[in-house]
Parts: sequence; C-alpha cells; structure tokens
Amino acid sequence: MKPVRLAILGLGTVGSGVLQLLQENATEIKRRTGREIQITHVGTRRPRPDLNLEGIQQSDDLFEIVRQPDVDIVVELIGGLHPAHDLILEAIKHGKQVVTANKALLAEEGNALFEAADNNTVQIAYEAAVAGGIPIIKVMREGLAANRIDWLAGIINGTGNFILTEMRDKSRQFKDVLAEAQALGYAEADPTFDVEGIDAAHKLTLLASIAFGIPLQFEKVYTEGISKITAQDVKYAEELGFRIKHLGIARRAENGIELRVHPTLIPEEQPLANVNGVQNAVSVKASAVGQTMYYGPGAGGGPTASAVVADVIDLVRDISYTEDGSGTIPQLAFESLEDIKILKREEMTTAYYLRVNVDDNKGVLADITTILSHCGISIDAIMQQPRLKDRVPVVIMTDPIVESKMDEAIAKIQALPATHGEVTRIRLESLEN
Amino acid sequence: MKPVRLAILGLGTVGSGVLQLLQENATEIKRRTGREIQITHVGTRRPRPDLNLEGIQQSDDLFEIVRQPDVDIVVELIGGLHPAHDLILEAIKHGKQVVTANKALLAEEGNALFEAADNNTVQIAYEAAVAGGIPIIKVMREGLAANRIDWLAGIINGTGNFILTEMRDKSRQFKDVLAEAQALGYAEADPTFDVEGIDAAHKLTLLASIAFGIPLQFEKVYTEGISKITAQDVKYAEELGFRIKHLGIARRAENGIELRVHPTLIPEEQPLANVNGVQNAVSVKASAVGQTMYYGPGAGGGPTASAVVADVIDLVRDISYTEDGSGTIPQLAFESLEDIKILKREEMTTAYYLRVNVDDNKGVLADITTILSHCGISIDAIMQQPRLKDRVPVVIMTDPIVESKMDEAIAKIQALPATHGEVTRIRLESLEN
Repeated sequence: MKPVRLAILGLGTVGSGVLQLLQENATEIKRRTGREIQITHVGTRRPRPDLNLEGIQQSDDLFEIVRQPDVDIVVELIGGLHPAHDLILEAIKHGKQVVTANKALLAEEGNALFEAADNNTVQIAYEAAVAGGIPIIKVMREGLAANRIDWLAGIINGTGNFILTEMRDKSRQFKDVLAEAQALGYAEADPTFDVEGIDAAHKLTLLASIAFGIPLQFEKVYTEGISKITAQDVKYAEELGFRIKHLGIARRAENGIELRVHPTLIPEEQPLANVNGVQNAVSVKASAVGQTMYYGPGAGGGPTASAVVADVIDLVRDISYTEDGSGTIPQLAFESLEDIKILKREEMTTAYYLRVNVDDNKGVLADITTILSHCGISIDAIMQQPRLKDRVPVVIMTDPIVESKMDEAIAKIQALPATHGEVTRIRLESLEN
Repeated sequence: MKPVRLAILGLGTVGSGVLQLLQENATEIKRRTGREIQITHVGTRRPRPDLNLEGIQQSDDLFEIVRQPDVDIVVELIGGLHPAHDLILEAIKHGKQVVTANKALLAEEGNALFEAADNNTVQIAYEAAVAGGIPIIKVMREGLAANRIDWLAGIINGTGNFILTEMRDKSRQFKDVLAEAQALGYAEADPTFDVEGIDAAHKLTLLASIAFGIPLQFEKVYTEGISKITAQDVKYAEELGFRIKHLGIARRAENGIELRVHPTLIPEEQPLANVNGVQNAVSVKASAVGQTMYYGPGAGGGPTASAVVADVIDLVRDISYTEDGSGTIPQLAFESLEDIKILKREEMTTAYYLRVNVDDNKGVLADITTILSHCGISIDAIMQQPRLKDRVPVVIMTDPIVESKMDEAIAKIQALPATHGEVTRIRLESLEN
C-alpha cells in the first residue's frame, strides 16, 4: 500500500513534537500500521532549521495546504477559533481526515464541524483535546461502551491543579502561587482560561457529549474558578479529611444532566485526591464496571503529540481497512445524539462545605442550624474553628441538597447580624460508587 | 442492518453478567452501534430460571453451538484450557468472531489461536482477560500506539493485593490474611494461581506481547509469589517510605526484555503504591507520553462483563463497517511480531531490599558491605533494626544490579558465620520516568 500523506498545520510545541515523534518512532509505528506515514506538508510562518523537514513542503498559506491533493490527513495544531475553524471546514470539504487538539474550537463550534465531517464521510479525531496524553476519549467512547455512564469527574487543567497542590503542600495563598506559576511558565500571563475553569469547561463539554450521547453544549456548563479559594479553607478541608480539587463534573441526575466545573472537596482516600501538581486524571463511574480512573500528564509537547499520533494511527488503519475511510466508531461515540435536559445551576444537587465568620456569640450556631433546617438542609458536621482576630470561623458540612435551597439558606445566613464578610461555599463530592 | 448474533458459552458469574448487561443496556448499546445484538444461543449445563432466556436456544453441547450458522460472535466464558481451546478453534474454523476472558488459555496457547484467527479472517478479542473492567488492552494497543513502550508495571491480581493491603493496614501475617480471604470467598481453596503469581504471569504475558510486539511467551516469565512476605518486612519497608506490592513487570532493557512477577518495594508516593484492596492498576512508561496509570476493579461479574461487551461492540462495528469483519487493528497490536530476546532471571537488573538477621557483632556490617562492594553492588542505605530476640535484623537497600551479581553476594552473605536463617531478598523499583 502507498503511504498515507499528512499535513501538519502549526509547528509550535505540539506540532514539532508530532513531527519528531513520527520521525523518531517511524519503524515501530510502521510495525503497527503496516503502512508508511509520509509528512508531505507543514504549515509554518518561519523557517525551522532546528527540525528535519527534508522532502516536506513548507508554506505559510494554510488554506492552500488543506486543499492539496497529496494530503490524506490534516493535523490542525494552530489553536484558537479562527482561522482554525475555516481551515478544518475547508479540509473536510476537500475530503481530508482531520486530527486536532483544539478543545476550545470543538467545544464551541464542534456540532457543526462534526456534522460537516459526517456529511463528507471523513472524521475529526480529537484525543489530544482532553487530558493530553491520557487516552480518555478512546476509553470513554470504546473501552466503556458497554456501560451507561453515571458520572465522570476530572482534574483536567494542570495549571489549576499545580496551584491547588502548592497551596496545600506549602500553606500558600492563591495569588502567591499563581505569580510563581507565571514566572515558571506553567501559567499564562493571562491565566483566566486556566484558573477560572474555562479550559476545563471546554474539555468537560467534549467528555460529557461522549459519555451521554448529547450534543456539545459549552454554553450550558456552570463554571467557577479557584481564585477565591483561600489557604484557610484548604487547611480546614485537610483537617476534615478532604482535599480541594478543581473538578470538571458531568453527572446524570434524575431530572437531567449536570455539567459543572468548580472547586470541590473530595475525601482524601479517593484516588483523585492524590493527583498532584500538573498531572491530570479522570474518574468515571459506569453502570457495569463501577469506578475506574485514568491518570497521566495532561499537557506538554510529548504527551499531546502521543495523543495526536495515536489518532493518526487510527485514521491510517481506517483509511486502509474501511470502505470509505470513515471508520467504525461514531465521532461522538453514539450513532444518534439525544437532547437530554442540561440542568441550570439552581437545579443541581451537591453537598456543601460552608464557612461563616461570626461574632463569638453563643446564639449564632443555633441561628445557622435553624436556617439550614428550615431550608431542608441536613447538616453532616458543624465545627467552630479557633478564633482568628475577633472572628470565629464556623465550618459546616451538609448532605446533598438542590442548589436553589442552598442559595436561600446562604442569603439568610449572610443576613444574620453576627455574620461578617461573605459566606464561603465550596461544593463537596464523596465520589463514591 | 440485521442483528448481529451472539452465542454465550458458560453462564457463570461473568456469563450471566454479560447476558444481563446486554439485556439491561440494550437501548443505549444500540444507540452506540446502530445495530441490534441478538443472543441466539447459550451454552449451559443446567436450567437457569433466574435469567431471562426467552427466545434463546439453550444447549449443553457447546461444540454444536459454535458450529451454528445463526451465530456471528462466540463469547467463551467457561475458562480453563480444555475444552475452551478446541471450542475457540472450532468457532474460528466456522468463521465466527471470538470474545474470551480466558487469560490462561491465551497466555499458554494464544500464538496458535491468534494465527488460526488471522488465517480465517476473524478476531479473538480479549479485553476481559487482563485487569477486568480496566480497558488496558485497548489503551496499550491503540491509545498509546504512537509510543515506544519502555516498561509497564501492574497490580493485576486482586486477591494478592487484598492480602498485601491487609498485611500492611493491620500488621497481620500472610497466612492469617489468606485464611480470612478464603473464608470470605476472595481467595480460592487452592490459592496457588493467585498468591504464587501464575494468574498475574498469564496477564503479564498478554500485556508484554502488545507492548513490545513479541509472541506470547508465558513460559519465560520469571514468577515469584507473595507467600514468603512477612509482616516484619512490610513494616520495615513502610518505615523507609515504601510499600510492598505484587507486581507484574515487563521492561525493555538494553540486551532484551524482562518479564517478571514478584513482590516489589515501590516508593509510597507512586500512584501504584496507593492501589489498595482488590483493585487493579497498571502503570505504563512510554517514550512520548511518559507515565500514565489505569485503575479500577480487576475482577467480578460486572467489571468483567463490561470488558466482554465492549469487545462485542467493537466486533459489531467491525462486522458492520470493515470489508471482511476482521477489523482495523492487529490482534496483538503489531502487524508483525518480533523475536526479541527474553532475559533469564540472572540477566535481569533491579534494585534490592535485603534483610539479614545477624549476631549483634560489630564486625558483621563491615563483612556485608565488603561482600556487596566486591560484587560491584552500590549500597543506597544500610540500617540496623531494633533487636528481635537474640538477633539483629540488618536492612540494606541497593542500587540496581544484574541479578547474577546479587546471587553471588547473597550466597556469600549467607555463608557468613554471623548470618542466621535465610537472607530475605525483595526487589525494589523506583518506577520513575
């Protein structure tokens, strides 16, 4: 069989990683596919004498590249919404298979793109878009295909997890760690995407779609960042046997699906609790298998290239052995997607960790417990912490409750004369089977 | 498209789990495959009024079932080498796809069976044969396909891990925990397969084949059980920051491949160290991605059925969308297998934990260190433990060394007049990138 021909758009960290991996590991990859993979084009704006580009055509006109007849697979690694969107669409229209790591683009505009791919009997492969080198897309879409997925919970942003790990290990405040992470190059100059959960919400959108067979609905993900987490709450959580992690959670509830990204207290004995630093991990609770977890590096040139090239290998096999190259597995895991209701934040159900700073007034604990009780909220534990200056922090852990009820209770607690500052609310998940 | 037709051989825990999963989750599975799966035959020796077998033909003549024309896929869940071997071969000859959870059969007679499947353009799918519900076969064969695998290390026997976890958590001796595990039904009446590492060696044989693209070579796996591990060594290891786990390890060394199952000290901060009870996990170190880990239940009806049915779904898709149903992925991950040398035990290289019980004699530490030094063995740490009766346990941790050298050193230490009883040797792996 003649070689399968590849164009790589973008030679940044991931793009050059893909090029090098295909070159260095060519012999082993050919043993797997039985077929050569030939890089015919790279799209790059500047010369790259550091890379071996012998026999590869270079151009800065990416649209020209995706129309070339000697290209079977287009690997889009330029990132961002535009021109990536138009490039992928143009590639699809020219009958090219597409591989991308572009989580933002797929989460926000993926429904139309996947439909275009279906209509042109090509595929968009996107293993690298979620959790870097962990093959979580393949696991969810194929490995767990026998199950009905109940929920998944993922640490899917390395920067956020690095910050929370440092806050816990060294009792440091968010701002200090963020500044250090920026100096070290772990966090962007504008860290909003990472610390406010937008990047995690993009990834969660993709995971939720293949977990439940629903359309991509980024705009319906409830997203809350970690910038308000304090070293004080990290410490109290620790004393109670919990860790605070920034989780992306997709859960099948009775009345719909919850899609949410937020800081979360989880029991320290849960495998996810021990995922530290820039590592990623996803726990999945599924009907037949129970809970499984997938752990590894979620970013970086090597891990992301590993996922991109795995997709390329799958596509080479599909091109070789299926009738029209469109493969055997639906792009979003299901042959037909269902419109299941996505719950609003007020309709979601979680347990809670609350912290209220109060005057040292005996009556106030009674006031708080009465409010919670009137709102139908069961208290799992309530603890007065050691006095800080002239305030006493009271920490409360509740049983699961619908959020609208918790909103109501917090508004009332906030209005108590003894309450000082804002009530801190952090969701809590047991992550049990 | 007409339904794909399935025969299930054996209605034990896993067989009935598969039947029930296919029945209960039929709607969701059809959303994934776009095609109905119809169970046409079950092979069972006795009536099963507890199961819904409406419209399914029952027979105790399994050979007759695998020859039926209205069967596309045969699911072999009777276990054992015979008659499973002949049944699978007969199914293959009749053009049936095969799904099996039979690790012993595949590890010991798989080469010929996979060849027969290739010759008949059918597949043997075996996700359920290793680590139960964790889709580790798919991960290794497809998810990490871009990488050159450096090593893998797995906790792939739940019974053994349960015993070691109890020994550590409750400072109990091996024999007591084993007796309890047998009473609870976690361990078989004859526990040899589990505690002596034979079951793990079967699974390791399969993992190593798809990691390195080598034939199945069960007979070349060095296998050592956990029955000689003492509570004392578990405690000393703990004090040094290590856990003892029964690992299956496949490693690409300079001069060949190491295949070994043995108790192993691993650093407590390694993700594998925190895999407790009957859970399984496999860590894989691969060239591009680095280290990833896969965690979950390694046995039981639900988890194993999850893996069996995932294989069925893959096969349904292959039957539907590939020319001859033989799929797109080589059964053992590579189009062609290579005969890479498998190292003998004496040629393998590992670090070591040694424990020597000695007279309380100042000269003996010098004697031991001199012997190690003469054998070219670097000492990482040497510690005298508190006296037990009239003996002083000396614990030594070494750097990695080829085992023939360690054999030599241990023989000499054993021969010292001050040495009492047998020298305890447990391998140690840092599992670092």
